Amino acid sequence: MSNHAHHHRLILMPSGRKGDIPTGTTVLEAARTLGVGIESICNGRLTCGKCQVIPETGSFVKHNITSSADHLSPPSEDERAFAAAHGIDLTQRRLSCVAHITGDALITVPEESQARKQVIRKEAGELVVEVAPAVRLYYVEVEPAYLGSPGDWERLQAALAASHHLHDMTIDPLLLRTLQKTLRDGQWAVTVTIWQGRQVIRIEPGYVESLYGLAVDVGSTTVAAHLCDLRSGAVVATEAMMNPQVRYGEDLLSRVSYAMSEAQGVQRLNRAVIRALNELATKAAETAGIQPVEITDVVLVGNTVMHHLLLGIDPSELGQLPFALATYDPVDVKARELGIKAIHPGAMAHVLPCIAGYVGADNVGVLLAEQGRLDDQITLIVDIGTNAEILLGTKDWMLSASSPTGPAFEGAHISHGQRAAAGAIERVRISSPAGEVRYKVIGDPRWSDELPEGEALRPTGICGSGIIEVVAELFTVGLIDGGGRFVQDAANRSARVRWAGRVAELVLAPADESATGREIVVTQGDIRAIQLAKAALYAGVKIMMNHQGIERVDRIRLAGAFGSYIDPVHAMTLGLIPDCDLARVTAIGNAAGDGARLALLNVEQRERARQAARSVTYVETAANLIFQDTFVDALGIPHSTDAFPHLENVVRQ
Amino acid sequence: MSNHAHHHRLILMPSGRKGDIPTGTTVLEAARTLGVGIESICNGRLTCGKCQVIPETGSFVKHNITSSADHLSPPSEDERAFAAAHGIDLTQRRLSCVAHITGDALITVPEESQARKQVIRKEAGELVVEVAPAVRLYYVEVEPAYLGSPGDWERLQAALAASHHLHDMTIDPLLLRTLQKTLRDGQWAVTVTIWQGRQVIRIEPGYVESLYGLAVDVGSTTVAAHLCDLRSGAVVATEAMMNPQVRYGEDLLSRVSYAMSEAQGVQRLNRAVIRALNELATKAAETAGIQPVEITDVVLVGNTVMHHLLLGIDPSELGQLPFALATYDPVDVKARELGIKAIHPGAMAHVLPCIAGYVGADNVGVLLAEQGRLDDQITLIVDIGTNAEILLGTKDWMLSASSPTGPAFEGAHISHGQRAAAGAIERVRISSPAGEVRYKVIGDPRWSDELPEGEALRPTGICGSGIIEVVAELFTVGLIDGGGRFVQDAANRSARVRWAGRVAELVLAPADESATGREIVVTQGDIRAIQLAKAALYAGVKIMMNHQGIERVDRIRLAGAFGSYIDPVHAMTLGLIPDCDLARVTAIGNAAGDGARLALLNVEQRERARQAARSVTYVETAANLIFQDTFVDALGIPHSTDAFPHLENVVRQ
Repeated sequence: MSNHAHHHRLILMPSGRKGDIPTGTTVLEAARTLGVGIESICNGRLTCGKCQVIPETGSFVKHNITSSADHLSPPSEDERAFAAAHGIDLTQRRLSCVAHITGDALITVPEESQARKQVIRKEAGELVVEVAPAVRLYYVEVEPAYLGSPGDWERLQAALAASHHLHDMTIDPLLLRTLQKTLRDGQWAVTVTIWQGRQVIRIEPGYVESLYGLAVDVGSTTVAAHLCDLRSGAVVATEAMMNPQVRYGEDLLSRVSYAMSEAQGVQRLNRAVIRALNELATKAAETAGIQPVEITDVVLVGNTVMHHLLLGIDPSELGQLPFALATYDPVDVKARELGIKAIHPGAMAHVLPCIAGYVGADNVGVLLAEQGRLDDQITLIVDIGTNAEILLGTKDWMLSASSPTGPAFEGAHISHGQRAAAGAIERVRISSPAGEVRYKVIGDPRWSDELPEGEALRPTGICGSGIIEVVAELFTVGLIDGGGRFVQDAANRSARVRWAGRVAELVLAPADESATGREIVVTQGDIRAIQLAKAALYAGVKIMMNHQGIERVDRIRLAGAFGSYIDPVHAMTLGLIPDCDLARVTAIGNAAGDGARLALLNVEQRERARQAARSVTYVETAANLIFQDTFVDALGIPHSTDAFPHLENVVRQ
Repeated sequence: MSNHAHHHRLILMPSGRKGDIPTGTTVLEAARTLGVGIESICNGRLTCGKCQVIPETGSFVKHNITSSADHLSPPSEDERAFAAAHGIDLTQRRLSCVAHITGDALITVPEESQARKQVIRKEAGELVVEVAPAVRLYYVEVEPAYLGSPGDWERLQAALAASHHLHDMTIDPLLLRTLQKTLRDGQWAVTVTIWQGRQVIRIEPGYVESLYGLAVDVGSTTVAAHLCDLRSGAVVATEAMMNPQVRYGEDLLSRVSYAMSEAQGVQRLNRAVIRALNELATKAAETAGIQPVEITDVVLVGNTVMHHLLLGIDPSELGQLPFALATYDPVDVKARELGIKAIHPGAMAHVLPCIAGYVGADNVGVLLAEQGRLDDQITLIVDIGTNAEILLGTKDWMLSASSPTGPAFEGAHISHGQRAAAGAIERVRISSPAGEVRYKVIGDPRWSDELPEGEALRPTGICGSGIIEVVAELFTVGLIDGGGRFVQDAANRSARVRWAGRVAELVLAPADESATGREIVVTQGDIRAIQLAKAALYAGVKIMMNHQGIERVDRIRLAGAFGSYIDPVHAMTLGLIPDCDLARVTAIGNAAGDGARLALLNVEQRERARQAARSVTYVETAANLIFQDTFVDALGIPHSTDAFPHLENVVRQ
């Protein structure tokens, strides 16, 4: 029953949203008023057919209304013609953009007509986002030109205002170059792509549905791109490649120093990563069976050095105190201005904000992906790379820090270290008391002791997760002590331990098992390197905990590729991460990339990211006076506040 | 006497503006409140010294106040130090940015401290504009970076807000690339160039005053650029060159058809004009002794075809009905996006709006330059080229139209026609009754009958103004009739007229006088061509007058190079322009270029231009049904509504 003479009660299912709607309002408009998104590109031009709804008939006692298909305006001739052409039974379904409300109605919005939601991630806590990207399509019919008419762009603006209530539009000036031909090719009907509700960035003849975007995680080592259909939110292709900057330096600091020391260093590093972005866009489009030029939006995340280099900013300031960022706010820029030219020339690029000198847009991406799951419990989120980027907080407060763990976790500066790639030893077990060693390599599901006689896994080296397990296992079986030193009788207790001069070492794989024909060995020095790296990480976490005055964390999430590989038990044994209920330590995969996808699929996430980045409290670790003490404390295995007198020697080694 | 306990009366001379100002307000702020512009770049940082004012002492009965130098706050130590370093006598002058008002005061703002005004034009009615360009300089001292500080750009924003009340600033993303080095080179003091009060487009270390802009009139034949000092408004260099598009077509329609028929036509035409802009910017900077990179703003005017081509827009639509413009609104675009790369990479380009298919930004420039002088009288403004662009109106209404006069006025399609260049006959007199001919050529002040024996002017051809004078003189002395035909006894009356088959012709310069060694002749066909051209122009004007229902115009202004050359008496004799008091026919020079300079020097003029362009009523001439009749009527000399029966033959020739 309507409350007002000229209003009718409308109830939309399955959401159950309701309200009193003036007579004559279209169902589409009414739904928008009630906060229910119904798909529509043509906005009443009877072109897209996306906005179908199901008017229900009957008395709905619970809602105190009697609904009827008659309570919508009868189908017009145009609606009948469209329905006939597209096989729509108008007794069952109506087009919400043209059906007016003339009486109380309960209407179901079927799933395919609902504005899309997209699952970003299923594992490690489902992550779902409403698909509401920065770029949107609008179908318009423009008044043809006539003698003395306003310009084509001015008439297109008038059409956007009349059909879609879009006012104060600007246009990418370079788009004026093709506007006239496009309008005429489309016989004055075009589909316009609008960025952020304010700038026309693409115009295509006729009715078009294609809308794609690229979310890119620019890692120091790997650049990974997800090509998303921005209508459905689905990932239609994922491509990754090595960051071609690697040739100018393996880790971040060596790239910064390349930028500082070489005349064209910044330009070379910039061009290398931009080339990668162009290649990935092209490859992903090919995989998805679309044209690269169909991509009109890009979201980029990366650590601060990657952030600067992809914008063409000299990262030199990040290589020295006080680690000043050129900007930490999000950046919106025409992709073409960055040299990203494989995609649509009008496409925009959005770079997520940074937090501080070494807490970058990648970490903001992680925060964006995780912040919906924050609660009262204290969550520690760690993304381990050459720098460990650390978030610690609850839904009410959040600290961030970075710790210079160095490249040991990525296999560098380890005698037989290598990147996590096929052939790398990633899992290690040492038996007690015999001290027998078995291992797994990336790319093979079998353990080294499960093979048929005469076959071997042929490891090429050991990667970060492998070395962590080695050290943790050595300690667990008592072959090294809490200080990380091989115990006096280690060589007696395990056939794989031997003395090499004054220090011992572990033969992980004998020469006849390896791919190189040489032994793969873990030395006392390697253990020291891991101790230094893990102490840096642990000390960073500890400083944050001290900063907040907390003793323990309730939950740990390990982000990034490395975080997904390492075994929480070994990580905790080693003292890489603080004590925590093991069941509450989870790997969350490439959360930075998830954050990039969130910001690509839903424009409001960009503002959330900006606010989150601004509200985070940055805790300085490297320059923190207590860092040294905490760091030395943390060198031991497992972490202990007891002094390890002999560790002083380790630090000075 | 102050009206309020904590307010004081302030009177600023020479403007006489006054108001009650809260105690403690700086004189600079107070002056801004009262609408008096005082120069200041540093805004109280005691760096620029531009804002000096003279506090007067005495009783000013007329203003009912007693002023004293003591009614300003005593100079601080900083102000004393600056004054000492710069030779300022603080008993005579104070720095208005730091001197606070503490009592009633009458203060003189000396001319050098007043916000600048610039004379755009002295002849043909003085044109003066306040210098308030789209780009402005701001000196700021930025907080140095510290561990965990906001980014450099964020701290620069904070400094702009604190020192200059500039909020919601954006930055050209590419400027982030050099921001950090610039801040450090300037030891955290920089001068920022801000466009339209909202985008930072340039940052320079330390205190900088350099601010330059380029106003360019992109003509079909000539591209002319004025390099202006945007602090003073003065033109510091003017350079012109032939539009290199000429090689692809002499007149507009031939360029449009080149664009339509050649695959790379549009790109070639675009690149040609952009190359010209880069060359002119470089040359002008060299002439002025500045670096091209000091240019941060550009204003462009041109007819609609030039407008489209410089933006890279295919002008094909302008070559056919209904002559649709891609856009008629003003365009703001990064100059670099247009390929204008000789100047500062952050520089903006502003293209004035157009009115209709053949009434372009050049005509809007003319209107902008002239609209301040409009009154109740009906003014006709004509800019004659391949198209005549015509404005007709008063301060209350304005019509615009274009007439396809063809290239005859530019010397094309005339037997011995040529462009207005050195050697062209530009003035002609024919004596009566003898029919003796004398002439002047461009580049020589003498008439052909004033030369010593044996010397000749050696003309190379005849230009537009020359041919108009020939035809008008032939009619005045009765050698041709009102229909434009040589009279039967013309050859008998003048030794210079002879029969050539069935028609007569005039020998303007005998073979032994010319530079080519061949006669320069005006044929019956040439007279016909001029008749057609002038009839097109006149018919256009007539249609506009009919549209408005008016019988005559009160005032005529002839714009453009051609307008400056032609003699109003001859033009009226010929019926090129309607009857008007000869004293009220004036040449206004390159008014389109003046309009471009106005828009360059004062940003508010851009909005005025936009509004003017929108408020003008476009009158269609070419498609107007009465055009043909009016056109045929107008073929006669002088114009008459009497029928000229034999003219039908002329039209069909």
